[in-house]
Amino acid sequence: MLTPDATSDASALVATAAAQGFALFAAVFIAADASGGHINPAVTFAMTLGGHIPIPNAVFYCISQMLGATFASLLLRLASAGQAIPTTRIAPEMTGFGGAVLESATTFALVYTVYVAFDPRGCTSGKRSSRSAVGPMVIGFVAGACVLATGSLTGGSMNPARSFGPAIISGDLKNQAVYWVGPLIGAALATLVHQHLVYPFPHSDDSPIESVVV
Amino acid sequence: MLTPDATSDASALVATAAAQGFALFAAVFIAADASGGHINPAVTFAMTLGGHIPIPNAVFYCISQMLGATFASLLLRLASAGQAIPTTRIAPEMTGFGGAVLESATTFALVYTVYVAFDPRGCTSGKRSSRSAVGPMVIGFVAGACVLATGSLTGGSMNPARSFGPAIISGDLKNQAVYWVGPLIGAALATLVHQHLVYPFPHSDDSPIESVVV
Amino acid sequence: MLTPDATSDASALVATAAAQGFALFAAVFIAADASGGHINPAVTFAMTLGGHIPIPNAVFYCISQMLGATFASLLLRLASAGQAIPTTRIAPEMTGFGGAVLESATTFALVYTVYVAFDPRGCTSGKRSSRSAVGPMVIGFVAGACVLATGSLTGGSMNPARSFGPAIISGDLKNQAVYWVGPLIGAALATLVHQHLVYPFPHSDDSPIESVVV
Amino acid sequence: MLTPDATSDASALVATAAAQGFALFAAVFIAADASGGHINPAVTFAMTLGGHIPIPNAVFYCISQMLGATFASLLLRLASAGQAIPTTRIAPEMTGFGGAVLESATTFALVYTVYVAFDPRGCTSGKRSSRSAVGPMVIGFVAGACVLATGSLTGGSMNPARSFGPAIISGDLKNQAVYWVGPLIGAALATLVHQHLVYPFPHSDDSPIESVVV
Repeated sequence: MLTPDATSDASALVATAAAQGFALFAAVFIAADASGGHINPAVTFAMTLGGHIPIPNAVFYCISQMLGATFASLLLRLASAGQAIPTTRIAPEMTGFGGAVLESATTFALVYTVYVAFDPRGCTSGKRSSRSAVGPMVIGFVAGACVLATGSLTGGSMNPARSFGPAIISGDLKNQAVYWVGPLIGAALATLVHQHLVYPFPHSDDSPIESVVV
Repeated sequence: MLTPDATSDASALVATAAAQGFALFAAVFIAADASGGHINPAVTFAMTLGGHIPIPNAVFYCISQMLGATFASLLLRLASAGQAIPTTRIAPEMTGFGGAVLESATTFALVYTVYVAFDPRGCTSGKRSSRSAVGPMVIGFVAGACVLATGSLTGGSMNPARSFGPAIISGDLKNQAVYWVGPLIGAALATLVHQHLVYPFPHSDDSPIESVVV
Repeated sequence: MLTPDATSDASALVATAAAQGFALFAAVFIAADASGGHINPAVTFAMTLGGHIPIPNAVFYCISQMLGATFASLLLRLASAGQAIPTTRIAPEMTGFGGAVLESATTFALVYTVYVAFDPRGCTSGKRSSRSAVGPMVIGFVAGACVLATGSLTGGSMNPARSFGPAIISGDLKNQAVYWVGPLIGAALATLVHQHLVYPFPHSDDSPIESVVV
Repeated sequence: MLTPDATSDASALVATAAAQGFALFAAVFIAADASGGHINPAVTFAMTLGGHIPIPNAVFYCISQMLGATFASLLLRLASAGQAIPTTRIAPEMTGFGGAVLESATTFALVYTVYVAFDPRGCTSGKRSSRSAVGPMVIGFVAGACVLATGSLTGGSMNPARSFGPAIISGDLKNQAVYWVGPLIGAALATLVHQHLVYPFPHSDDSPIESVVV
């Protein structure tokens, strides 16, 4: 076996979850200051719904994310002699609807955590800086936990671009709809719950959430 | 195998422990400001014993926790076509008494860690904010360590609601008493030791422990 | 298999390393304020050599550590119907001398990390509080890394009491000398290097190292 | 199997990645104040290119790193009766060119993370101390993620000295060029992107980056 397949056994699941969690932790940490770190169309969609970034920027980010995932999959195929493109797949026992529900639930958890980690509302000013330092870590760990919970059922994508790139390069476009509909609904629900139900007061103008999102 | 079974082999144990630890870290982190994050009847019981929350609130929390765990198990059964409800089970070699002792010991560790992480007594004021940031992490990691230590023996529950929900949905109510008696005794002992033996001086009125518990 | 055996395969090694690392992180975190958290004779020995605790206290701590490890092993034997006492063992290919060298090297890394995490010398005052928060974590992780590196060769003990307790209860006292000689030499070397070569200036009187050690 | 082989299965990959990540976290943490913690020729090369350390120092560091890795491999061979020297190997399906591309990509991620963690530019002063505390952790985790991503393909070296030492002791010098060319190109690209494209303004004179690098 060249690369682990999360649907096959428990240790492959741990490897996949750790890789995804650690890499997301690092990606959020290193990109936070420079570019805002938009690497997930579901998170970009949530930030657009919440009014944190303008729609044209969001469209540009999403296209970049899909191109980046496609290019990375192509690089992996070329470097590894045409093997091991890690597509996300629905387990045979699952329906597409069930897969979308699970992807929606895990993406809800991810996007809600992004809001808690970077929204200045809902934490006292004294905790601000230590929360910023822990934010990228908890985002990575919640992603790892979600991969462990659903990796054997849906692959634990939570990111339409992550599912899109390998699918294009491998030519296996089955169930793509699941990996778009599920995460986007989850992201929208997380925005609704965090921004309108839990912290419904108006945005401050100097919100750092615009500069630091996944 | 659809989902890992912690009693079967070491890699399934790692997957289960990491999932539980990472998810608990994230859950405490995201819920701390908004609701207090009560997700475990044993912790709620300890906070009630310690005088941090009133009894009616505790009853309401416990009912919510059992309903939430049941609903999540039902969602998993429906989404995954009726498979893979992760009940906690006592290993064949174990007695129910032995299982309750182990669940009590691990819940003691978990609840004691919650007290250290969020009780303002017992740490100097200068370390307060950095301790708050690390608190959710150490709570998640102590849970992960306890699952690794006892997962193959009792499933590593430490949470009566976590054992109750899957048991109701799967119809396998065997050994439920173990997962209530063990954790509640462990939580009571942790309260006794931390609140009365280690830090026995009176509560301050502005204790943040009421707003930030698991 | 009831509990993982670190010498058998890679996933058991990961389970053992994660359990040991996470538990040590939590133990240092929760015991730091209250008791100083002496749980390892090798660390207690290092602190005595470095002049941080008086000899009678160190003797008392070491006896307590050996009794605690023995009692925990007895509890595990009784609760799990007499199985699964996790003794540390030297791999068949290893000599006792080789095992002691490896235990010495890993204990050096552990004790040196304890000095860096809690010695006020060698870090600027501005970083003090954030270092304190990360200290327990890095101590846990360095222990986990050492278990991963040497678990299949010596069991990755680094703690004479941790090897003593299971050995007494299981009656398998073979190679006990390895788990005392190796760690104590490693601890002494770490004290020599950190306290006399790297930071050789005199102790400050208000050193927090006395109140917060493993 | 005496020690895990990252190219063989998923749980060995997790063990290798966790060992490398945790050990790097600890190494950066404990060496930051005292020596700067140069343990990787690729990082030393990047710091030299970026003008942070003089060339003679870099040459001295690189020779020390190669000697240290060789000595550690020799110690492991002697202690473990001549087995288990962990050389890095290219998977049979891979070309040397493909391996170098992957090593370059992962070393880019590692070195870029080192720049973000320790370069005072690109973060506001208020976050400085909490970023320092998290820096060693994110460096360790990004290394762990890279080992998980490429361990089954190239061994996930990212460090020429780490590949050189075991190769010399085991006598298996095949593909050494891959582990020098790939990481050095990745390190140079990370320097180019971070120091000249993302944060192109001039260096401050009191840059702490010189005292705290991997």
